[in-house]
Amino acid sequence: MAQDIHPTALVAPDAQLGARVTIGPYSVVHPGVVLGEGTFVGAHCELGLPLGGARPTGAPEGLLIGAGAVIRSGSALYDGSRFGPRFECGHKVTIREHTVAGENLRVGTLGDIQGDCQFGDFVRLHGNVQVGKGSRLASFVWIFPFVVLTNDPHPPSSHCLGVSIDTFAVVGAHSILLPGITLGAESVIAAGSVVSSCIASGQLAGGRPAKVLCPARIVRDKLNPARKAYPWQAVFSRGLPWEGQDYAAWRARHPDTGFPSIG
Amino acid sequence: MAQDIHPTALVAPDAQLGARVTIGPYSVVHPGVVLGEGTFVGAHCELGLPLGGARPTGAPEGLLIGAGAVIRSGSALYDGSRFGPRFECGHKVTIREHTVAGENLRVGTLGDIQGDCQFGDFVRLHGNVQVGKGSRLASFVWIFPFVVLTNDPHPPSSHCLGVSIDTFAVVGAHSILLPGITLGAESVIAAGSVVSSCIASGQLAGGRPAKVLCPARIVRDKLNPARKAYPWQAVFSRGLPWEGQDYAAWRARHPDTGFPSIG
Amino acid sequence: MAQDIHPTALVAPDAQLGARVTIGPYSVVHPGVVLGEGTFVGAHCELGLPLGGARPTGAPEGLLIGAGAVIRSGSALYDGSRFGPRFECGHKVTIREHTVAGENLRVGTLGDIQGDCQFGDFVRLHGNVQVGKGSRLASFVWIFPFVVLTNDPHPPSSHCLGVSIDTFAVVGAHSILLPGITLGAESVIAAGSVVSSCIASGQLAGGRPAKVLCPARIVRDKLNPARKAYPWQAVFSRGLPWEGQDYAAWRARHPDTGFPSIG
Repeated sequence: MAQDIHPTALVAPDAQLGARVTIGPYSVVHPGVVLGEGTFVGAHCELGLPLGGARPTGAPEGLLIGAGAVIRSGSALYDGSRFGPRFECGHKVTIREHTVAGENLRVGTLGDIQGDCQFGDFVRLHGNVQVGKGSRLASFVWIFPFVVLTNDPHPPSSHCLGVSIDTFAVVGAHSILLPGITLGAESVIAAGSVVSSCIASGQLAGGRPAKVLCPARIVRDKLNPARKAYPWQAVFSRGLPWEGQDYAAWRARHPDTGFPSIG
Repeated sequence: MAQDIHPTALVAPDAQLGARVTIGPYSVVHPGVVLGEGTFVGAHCELGLPLGGARPTGAPEGLLIGAGAVIRSGSALYDGSRFGPRFECGHKVTIREHTVAGENLRVGTLGDIQGDCQFGDFVRLHGNVQVGKGSRLASFVWIFPFVVLTNDPHPPSSHCLGVSIDTFAVVGAHSILLPGITLGAESVIAAGSVVSSCIASGQLAGGRPAKVLCPARIVRDKLNPARKAYPWQAVFSRGLPWEGQDYAAWRARHPDTGFPSIG
Repeated sequence: MAQDIHPTALVAPDAQLGARVTIGPYSVVHPGVVLGEGTFVGAHCELGLPLGGARPTGAPEGLLIGAGAVIRSGSALYDGSRFGPRFECGHKVTIREHTVAGENLRVGTLGDIQGDCQFGDFVRLHGNVQVGKGSRLASFVWIFPFVVLTNDPHPPSSHCLGVSIDTFAVVGAHSILLPGITLGAESVIAAGSVVSSCIASGQLAGGRPAKVLCPARIVRDKLNPARKAYPWQAVFSRGLPWEGQDYAAWRARHPDTGFPSIG
């Protein structure tokens, strides 16, 4: 049950560290941080950055990180957010305040989450994804590298129209999601798209602006054309709750997956 | 008037720190750095990196940062640049040498400014912007995420044709500005554009390659169609000199805003 | 022959540091790291991150870095990779395990190499390039900012079809290389392209999807139209083995440049 706090780590006396927490060298843990049991924090991280930055605005609201998290080196997480169990992030990630995530959110290296965002369970962001303020991603959404979720319809303005993405949707690399759009459940956006309008559930869309091309379910597996590629959850399970099981049977037992799981 | 230098910060004896400067844990301040009064430097920063890197080329030229700056954690600024008052940068920003900025430049998280660049006053770069060597941005320019300002017309070559952007211009997310192009004052580039030729003042352009679509002033506010969205400065003022005032009246008193303000 | 290890650097006792190695403040060097003579490591780096991350999988495989390397601040390199002499990387670079590089690989600031990648000699990646697992880049390849080398044909899936790029090829900024494609020797991809099929040697391709536009050798130098821009190696030599020599004569003495040089 021993913790492993590197002697150079600077941990505020009132931070709450669960059993078997590891904190790497030269990391900083501010007041108000709560790290669940077994959480690993790499080197050069900073957790619980005060709201208001250079001019802190008061007592910490708390940064709550559930059990079993892995926070890789160089990452900075602000005060005022909370993450369900088994949160994982890559290196050099930045997550601003008032972000709420369910179970097992994964944020890739260099991810930049700008605050006031909501994530369901098992959301996966690959490296170099920027999630603008006010975005809402339901459970099991995948976002690939260099995607940006914008929020300002005619920048600069005072409007903040976050993007909403429903369960099991997939957004290909280098796509731009324009302010306020919605992606339906199980929709798939091709790499390099500019999505300027809402995409219906189960559709594959692409282009600039993105147009619906076909139902995603007609895409075949490139290396095994007898198999469908989408909906992906029927053929891919690594690290997901139905790993080693039949997806349909698992889903039948979990009919309400999605935004409602956000705490 | 007390400074707040964290005991783990490594500050060169000949660095000059103004009153009320804060330096966070594990940051490094090299010789030749001058930090204006009230400047905040977060954790894990490095200021005044020697020119020549691994093989420093001699005595420092000086990194001059005006009063009231906010330099967030993980940022690295080279020797040989200077920034006007109230410079702000996000996390994990990199700024190479011989960059000159006016008042209140803001560089978002993961910004990468490659040196020999000029910025007027109140320029705003959102996160993940890469500004190539030799770029020139006049006052009040806005650049949105994942934009790249290139400079090599047929890479790799020895040419360096920086981009020039005039006052109040706006560049939407994920746009590519090709070498040597000029964006006119108050021009607006739609997200995801490839700008391969000069865009005249006040025009909205978009596409690949970007074409002029219409005068920007005919774009209406999405949430309030009775109001124009551009020129943006008539409807947006947060953090800008005309905040709380009528822009036109402010401008009448400041007719010479732009490149000339670069020191 | 003196080393210059900053007193705050944490160097594992069994790391092997060659003569004249420099390690900057607050950097961490794990067991199994071997740094060649004259290597420079900046501040806030972490070298030899254990495989398995939070749950290390056993004894280190070794991170071998050849002589004369320059590893700039904030970079993180995993155990289990090896780099030939004169490796250079920018700031805040991340390189995962089982990457093998020849001589003088250069990776720009914020580069993200995801592991199991092969690089020939003198490969150049500008800033903000993401190289997916399983990519293969032959000698003298250039990749410009915000390019992504993908590997999953219909994400998410279990397939990993890395991209292959042959000698002297050039990929312009913000391009997307789709899974499994091959770029021929001396091919040139225009900025902002989506490359979904193989591009033959010596061709200039661009667009979404990228189409062959013309042989690259008909592109003229923009500032000196009497001169061809490609093949670039005939007109550009900075930092390359034929610097100060005639390229054709140099090449005649080195006919086997390319993948075979990967050790």
